[in-house]
Amino acid sequence: MKNEKIPYKIYLNESEMPKAWYNLRADMKQKPAPLLNPGTHQPMKAKELVGVFCEELIAQELDNDTAYFEIPEEIRSFYKMYRPSPLVRAYCLEEKLGTPAKIYYKFEGNNTSGSHKLNSAIAQAYYAKKQGLKGVTTETGAGQWGTALSMACSYFDLDCKVYMVKCSYEQKPFRREVMRTYGASVTPSPSMETEVGRKILAEHPGTTGSLGCAISEAVEKAVTSDGYRYVLGSVLNQVLLHQSVIGLETKAALDKFNIKPDIIIGCAGGGSNLGGLIAPFMGEKLRGEADYRIIAVEPASCPSFTRGIYAYDFCDTGMVCPLAKMYTLGSDFIPSANHAGGLRYHGMSSTLSELYHQGLMEATSVKQTEVFEAAEYFARVEGILPAPESSHAIRVAIDEALKCKNNGEEKTIVFGLTGTGYFDMVAYEKFHDGDMDDYIPSDEELAVYRNKLPIVAVKS
Amino acid sequence: MKNEKIPYKIYLNESEMPKAWYNLRADMKQKPAPLLNPGTHQPMKAKELVGVFCEELIAQELDNDTAYFEIPEEIRSFYKMYRPSPLVRAYCLEEKLGTPAKIYYKFEGNNTSGSHKLNSAIAQAYYAKKQGLKGVTTETGAGQWGTALSMACSYFDLDCKVYMVKCSYEQKPFRREVMRTYGASVTPSPSMETEVGRKILAEHPGTTGSLGCAISEAVEKAVTSDGYRYVLGSVLNQVLLHQSVIGLETKAALDKFNIKPDIIIGCAGGGSNLGGLIAPFMGEKLRGEADYRIIAVEPASCPSFTRGIYAYDFCDTGMVCPLAKMYTLGSDFIPSANHAGGLRYHGMSSTLSELYHQGLMEATSVKQTEVFEAAEYFARVEGILPAPESSHAIRVAIDEALKCKNNGEEKTIVFGLTGTGYFDMVAYEKFHDGDMDDYIPSDEELAVYRNKLPIVAVKS
Repeated sequence: MKNEKIPYKIYLNESEMPKAWYNLRADMKQKPAPLLNPGTHQPMKAKELVGVFCEELIAQELDNDTAYFEIPEEIRSFYKMYRPSPLVRAYCLEEKLGTPAKIYYKFEGNNTSGSHKLNSAIAQAYYAKKQGLKGVTTETGAGQWGTALSMACSYFDLDCKVYMVKCSYEQKPFRREVMRTYGASVTPSPSMETEVGRKILAEHPGTTGSLGCAISEAVEKAVTSDGYRYVLGSVLNQVLLHQSVIGLETKAALDKFNIKPDIIIGCAGGGSNLGGLIAPFMGEKLRGEADYRIIAVEPASCPSFTRGIYAYDFCDTGMVCPLAKMYTLGSDFIPSANHAGGLRYHGMSSTLSELYHQGLMEATSVKQTEVFEAAEYFARVEGILPAPESSHAIRVAIDEALKCKNNGEEKTIVFGLTGTGYFDMVAYEKFHDGDMDDYIPSDEELAVYRNKLPIVAVKS
Repeated sequence: MKNEKIPYKIYLNESEMPKAWYNLRADMKQKPAPLLNPGTHQPMKAKELVGVFCEELIAQELDNDTAYFEIPEEIRSFYKMYRPSPLVRAYCLEEKLGTPAKIYYKFEGNNTSGSHKLNSAIAQAYYAKKQGLKGVTTETGAGQWGTALSMACSYFDLDCKVYMVKCSYEQKPFRREVMRTYGASVTPSPSMETEVGRKILAEHPGTTGSLGCAISEAVEKAVTSDGYRYVLGSVLNQVLLHQSVIGLETKAALDKFNIKPDIIIGCAGGGSNLGGLIAPFMGEKLRGEADYRIIAVEPASCPSFTRGIYAYDFCDTGMVCPLAKMYTLGSDFIPSANHAGGLRYHGMSSTLSELYHQGLMEATSVKQTEVFEAAEYFARVEGILPAPESSHAIRVAIDEALKCKNNGEEKTIVFGLTGTGYFDMVAYEKFHDGDMDDYIPSDEELAVYRNKLPIVAVKS
């Protein structure tokens, strides 16, 4: 009964909320590889990025040395509307599984975006406003990032222009409507609004779009519109920096009760949630202060970590963005249309890629049906209806807890529950109707995209 | 700056959560009128209800004297998964309105049912399980109650059979899918599954259904199935009892910071949220210990308090349920199909009806467009996308706060934010597209239904 002291939900007080973001890169001996100019293959300089990104965000993007960035007061005020998020002790799940493991999850879904994306959206909107911009452009796939950015822009009275991957736009009209409630304009991508969109449509007339393509359109729109910049919801260093608030809160909550996790698990698409969740723990690991097993979980249908290669690649289909060194499947890769959630990006955060490359974290991939089985199981036991993305982490957390049961190990598992699945009921319906498939790309298929990777001679 | 001490969100500790529900009726001098047997017009006795309701719930329903009912440990455990709910100080809304009023809202939407309905669903499922039943039947309109009951039944491994008003079933497929995720079976009502359903379909072939009709079907199914009972999400005394957890938490949170509200506002359909929110405050008022302005807000399209009459009426269209004395529009009344949210029930809780009749609370009605204007305004300012039902309370809270601004009054306003609007985006879309109407029934129309009210000679 010693666990009785730990509540179902650990909430920090507002005064205990983080006052600074933690920049993981500061503690990395081998830094993530720099972004390269796609023409010259030279590391991008701040001045080359000012047409695309907000100035302070560029500074955060390129800074590998500053460990802490103060969170501006305005952002901390906004955070208070939906943070601190609870760290939940999954008592019911533990009991149902009959495991001696102790399971905790950090639940980021209690806000209208339905996910952790709001943590970076509000930061990016703040810096755009501070710079005196009129608005921002972005892309969205599953719709969480677009919703989050719409909310953030509405708060700071900024114009918000979202390119939404066409298949999502059509399958998720309610996501679109939420963005509209917050005043954003939403365009299905590829569109005829941009040069790159028109080009992609001419080459692939029936395409249902991809994140890489929507990124290209959003970037073009930003650089060709006066007073606009482009913002991105994942992959970038700056996003991982903002998302560190997840990990910092998690660690503060655990420390309050002297809990030390053994295993930390997060789903990984572009890496924003995982990078944020693990930040302070990985920091301790890098500094040799503690050790943790850290597991990235990705869909078997889009396996950048587990089957991609570590190389420089384009971040977008239109090849208008800088080159990033990352685990990638190739910028033309588009996961099966039957893949139901987010986590569809062809590459992975450079920072996480470097950490993975150094063996500081593990990665595993899971099949779609297994993921939804875990999702429904979790919903029934813990009450929360999880997003398909988050359910990748649930799947592996359950598997690890069952291993503990088999081995009689009393490990402590922490996972990130990034969001809710309220806008993903079409996917749940497919699962209930047995219409879900577990398509996994073949080696030959992956080789096609891999062979298109740019050949980059990096000058160090 | 003295307000700075009050956090954005007041969370109770788990140890501060209510351990007993409060039964408002115990403090009423004039008790609510009893349920009557529709045949004999005599007050219903417990033994007449055992075929329909669970035994302990009947005891709660008929008990006008016991002030506190202990909340069973199993229910308190479940509550801990999503409670305590936050009492939010609407700092952003106050600032945007420029009002000296202090606004608080109790937010009940942070659970998968998206509303306060789970508070009573888990209690009713618990007593059904305790009685050894196989399952329960119910109706759902907007879908919140059905979702809540599905979750509760899943937790206690009970079968759950939901009759969903046909127009909702068709307009809200995702609500249906959430219920399915929790293992419930969902039937559009009226259906061919029940005698009363077949009768209604024969008389009104094209009907899109109503709550009153779905209730009749659910009751019939319960009484004709072995090991099943019927449960209801609003109107009944037992539901108000369970929902008192909202008001008790609200009061405990306010007391922690020595805050005394002047005005308490809640939306009112059948009365479950309002009755729960106001319970301890109304208790103080009844005992002469304090005074509060209490305002019920209902849609102008379904104005039971403001334009109904206080009389005995049927609770359902099929007239299979007991008669209840309440403010009613007549059991055949069905609000305009263009009315977008819940709050569609023809009658009102007997307890609230009696309190209103005694002048202990006020009621007001608001038009649909005004409600959605308030909803969108609130979403942009406070971040939460509110349910249409909850937005009725938001509308009046904003109006009262603006009165304070005009009069320079520093009043404290508390309102109930019962839920989120994630499954109501079709209604928001209508609002954005200007397709919303503000239909209000004429006096002549209301008279038609009023003239059908049963003539009841009550023997006291």
